[in-house]
Amino acid sequence: MNHDAIGVFDSGLGGLTAVKALNEILPNENIIFFGDTARVPYGTRSRQTILRYTREDIAFLRRHPVKMIIAACGTVSSMLGTNSPVEDIPFTGVVWPAAQKASEVTENGKIGVIGTPATIQSSSYENALHTINKNIDVTAMSCPLLVHLVEYGYTSRDNKITRLAAEEYLTPIRNAGVDTLIMGCTHYPIIKEIIADIMGDNVTLLSAGEEAAKYAKSCLEKQDLLTDRTEPGHNIYYVSDSVSSFRENAKNFLQDAAHGQVFSSRI
Amino acid sequence: MNHDAIGVFDSGLGGLTAVKALNEILPNENIIFFGDTARVPYGTRSRQTILRYTREDIAFLRRHPVKMIIAACGTVSSMLGTNSPVEDIPFTGVVWPAAQKASEVTENGKIGVIGTPATIQSSSYENALHTINKNIDVTAMSCPLLVHLVEYGYTSRDNKITRLAAEEYLTPIRNAGVDTLIMGCTHYPIIKEIIADIMGDNVTLLSAGEEAAKYAKSCLEKQDLLTDRTEPGHNIYYVSDSVSSFRENAKNFLQDAAHGQVFSSRI
Repeated sequence: MNHDAIGVFDSGLGGLTAVKALNEILPNENIIFFGDTARVPYGTRSRQTILRYTREDIAFLRRHPVKMIIAACGTVSSMLGTNSPVEDIPFTGVVWPAAQKASEVTENGKIGVIGTPATIQSSSYENALHTINKNIDVTAMSCPLLVHLVEYGYTSRDNKITRLAAEEYLTPIRNAGVDTLIMGCTHYPIIKEIIADIMGDNVTLLSAGEEAAKYAKSCLEKQDLLTDRTEPGHNIYYVSDSVSSFRENAKNFLQDAAHGQVFSSRI
Repeated sequence: MNHDAIGVFDSGLGGLTAVKALNEILPNENIIFFGDTARVPYGTRSRQTILRYTREDIAFLRRHPVKMIIAACGTVSSMLGTNSPVEDIPFTGVVWPAAQKASEVTENGKIGVIGTPATIQSSSYENALHTINKNIDVTAMSCPLLVHLVEYGYTSRDNKITRLAAEEYLTPIRNAGVDTLIMGCTHYPIIKEIIADIMGDNVTLLSAGEEAAKYAKSCLEKQDLLTDRTEPGHNIYYVSDSVSSFRENAKNFLQDAAHGQVFSSRI
């Protein structure tokens, strides 16, 4: 067993959807979260810039004692592909856990994927799904605006701008007849009601961040790295921009105020 | 006279609207442009982060021989207020030139301002306008999505998402009865057709970047710093993210391909 924290990072606050899931399924674990809010978004930047930011984010987390790292960011996970950026501790991105789950859930073999431009251009989810089952039919769509709409709080179910943008992005996927949709960026579950309204009741929505959290649990279990503490774990949040903007926005992702210390740290 | 270049910087590519104006009114001057495309946008970040990025952008430009610096970014200009970040060469932001022009143009004394959240929260344009004439009635509106819509090319006159967002932001300003609107972020002139459609024919639209370019000309003239070269000047472009994304997007701002060398440079 191991009492170190689980390190989680994201370009912004979307990764908090993974933190929330970890708190639910591993309530005794400590979490250290880093959100690169001074440089969000990543998904519209070049591959080399995203990989540089990724190295810096991981180096920041590794200044703390962490027993596993989760890249709770669809864009980072996509740029890394099957490469692990750390060798001595377990690591996961969100792509493979989400692809695995989607391949189990689909009945008609048609899966939709939404993500940032960098994610979709990389074909990361498509590659993962086809490695699992080459017959899966994938319809992928780049959604450049959705990260911003979520980060700025345009998230209520009746928000006209978000609904219009989501309709534009999702209509071709709905028309392709998918029965499963991977929300391939950890920001998207915040607007899942709008996404569900457009996709309809018969489409299963998968949160990439949640699937990564479940995968992390099984990975730590297998390697006997879970804590045996019985008291609740603590979350510590670091962001690269100001703490105040984190406090304003984090509740959208965690559904209540961030119950942990928050620090601003330049990287 | 002085043959050094004019240095221009922006969070992203919006500042190219100022470069375009400089090329038109000072065709023999060399321009060095820096766009911080690896960290755009600035306008939704905290004051301290924006000021740190500003210092870094200026330090980058000053590695080249420049005779003046233009912060072609409404957000940066607003954070600086009346402080000049350089002492030995002339400097201008976009706020004061635009406010000066607006105060000359308005007939009914009612002026609208649109800008990023950081710009509007700072009340920079309002302060400048009230310093010029305390009776001016200012209606200001924060438009967080517009920078993204422009950077992602959602710029055609019939784009539904951009029109819906612009209508939401501009309706209160139109209802206030302004006769002049300062487009307080250098990205906005790219969608000026949509803005004009919503504001109506009787409202004068002012481009903050263009006004800054005109102010720079008069400033260099007064200090006898213009070149006396008769051949056309050259533009050199630096961006902090990849050159390829610059090439794709720059034509939206310059109306033709960037006629100059483009380099990617980490700062």
